[in-house]
Amino acid sequence: MNNIRMIVSYDGTDYSGFQSQPSGNTIQDVLEAAIRSLTKEDGLRIIGSGRTDAGVHAQGQVFNFHTESRIPVERWTLAINARLPDDIVVLQADLMPPEFHARHSALSKTYRYVIDTSQFPDVFQRRYALHHYAPLDVQAMREGLQELVGEHDFTSFASPQSTQPSHVRTIYNIALLESPNKLELYVTGSGFLYNMVRIIAGTAVWIGEGKLSPGDIPAILAARDRTLAGPTAMAHGLTLWQVEYPEF
Amino acid sequence: MNNIRMIVSYDGTDYSGFQSQPSGNTIQDVLEAAIRSLTKEDGLRIIGSGRTDAGVHAQGQVFNFHTESRIPVERWTLAINARLPDDIVVLQADLMPPEFHARHSALSKTYRYVIDTSQFPDVFQRRYALHHYAPLDVQAMREGLQELVGEHDFTSFASPQSTQPSHVRTIYNIALLESPNKLELYVTGSGFLYNMVRIIAGTAVWIGEGKLSPGDIPAILAARDRTLAGPTAMAHGLTLWQVEYPEF
Repeated sequence: MNNIRMIVSYDGTDYSGFQSQPSGNTIQDVLEAAIRSLTKEDGLRIIGSGRTDAGVHAQGQVFNFHTESRIPVERWTLAINARLPDDIVVLQADLMPPEFHARHSALSKTYRYVIDTSQFPDVFQRRYALHHYAPLDVQAMREGLQELVGEHDFTSFASPQSTQPSHVRTIYNIALLESPNKLELYVTGSGFLYNMVRIIAGTAVWIGEGKLSPGDIPAILAARDRTLAGPTAMAHGLTLWQVEYPEF
Repeated sequence: MNNIRMIVSYDGTDYSGFQSQPSGNTIQDVLEAAIRSLTKEDGLRIIGSGRTDAGVHAQGQVFNFHTESRIPVERWTLAINARLPDDIVVLQADLMPPEFHARHSALSKTYRYVIDTSQFPDVFQRRYALHHYAPLDVQAMREGLQELVGEHDFTSFASPQSTQPSHVRTIYNIALLESPNKLELYVTGSGFLYNMVRIIAGTAVWIGEGKLSPGDIPAILAARDRTLAGPTAMAHGLTLWQVEYPEF
């Protein structure tokens, strides 16, 4: 049995998220169908590093699967891309030791959230960036975001629908990069709760608008109350940027 | 009668080109419908700086129109964008002197052609870049492209369907910018024949692949024979970047 890891990028616009669900139209469904058409293994399932919501994109989502197929690993990328629609592209395939597991082995993940600050939306970024034209205090946003770094209970930054037993997570790094007409928020953490990065982005926008101040963040974290943080920013600005693993 | 100039960007993927045609689904049709819904002038027509082909994009296409409407010019952008689909965005509106004409007044135009040189296509650029993964000799491409600068008869670089009385045009500037996994070709000229930038891009790729050498270009120009230049590169990599005008 071979354990194959793939890195995949996708435009999530037209999908109901990564993970399979009864109503279909997920990235996982499309990937599994493409792999099964190659291996003829009807029961083959893939293991994603985690789910992404409907409309969320990925630059470097990671998944693995076990197969009896004899297809050499270096042939996999071309073979699977030939069977995928053009909004899903496998970038890399590697043969891994049996113990590699895309979710359990992950050390951390990095997400990117993009805000298009042009007066009128950049038509070429409309599927990948939140359009927000209004003065934003970027320095205040950075100060507030730094308050999130470290180990915290992120209940205030999670959807009330979250069913996780613990809301304690660690954020290792947050960076807010400013370029003409664009803000890019990169967040690296041990793991993320449902809607967590989108709520962080929405809260950062509220800080930028002066609706919250950077000094409010510690109290918002401490309250463990979703209603105190900012809004859940729209899905289409979010991209799962990469998933970090130890050496195997 | 006011003469209003607008700068518009569009994602041409889902349109049959800029200019109105009997089969419909053009950028011009959509713009005219939006403007007419504001001005209630049934016969209103817009004058574009020129056509763009089906699937070609624009960062800064320019058009003008004459209207009796009293809408203040500073209100136009918001008003029209509210009536446009999200793949067409008006960036600027200006009140111009009566003699301004988007096509006749243009001094030059700049087009961009993007080549995605990644091994596997960048999913976020798939609508805006030609994917071409194979070693390209960028220095040779630049040398060959420089042979096109100046005034030439560009018959070898025009679709045989061109009905222009003269194929003499002037290219003022060509630049080929290289960045990781991307080549961007910018061409500025007095005007362009049907498919001309796409044939220049396709010829540049052939030079990059060694199928033509930079020194072949003068003879290809001199022969005035379309069959000697490279292929017509796909439309989706092309963007009308900007249109240059004198001060008004």
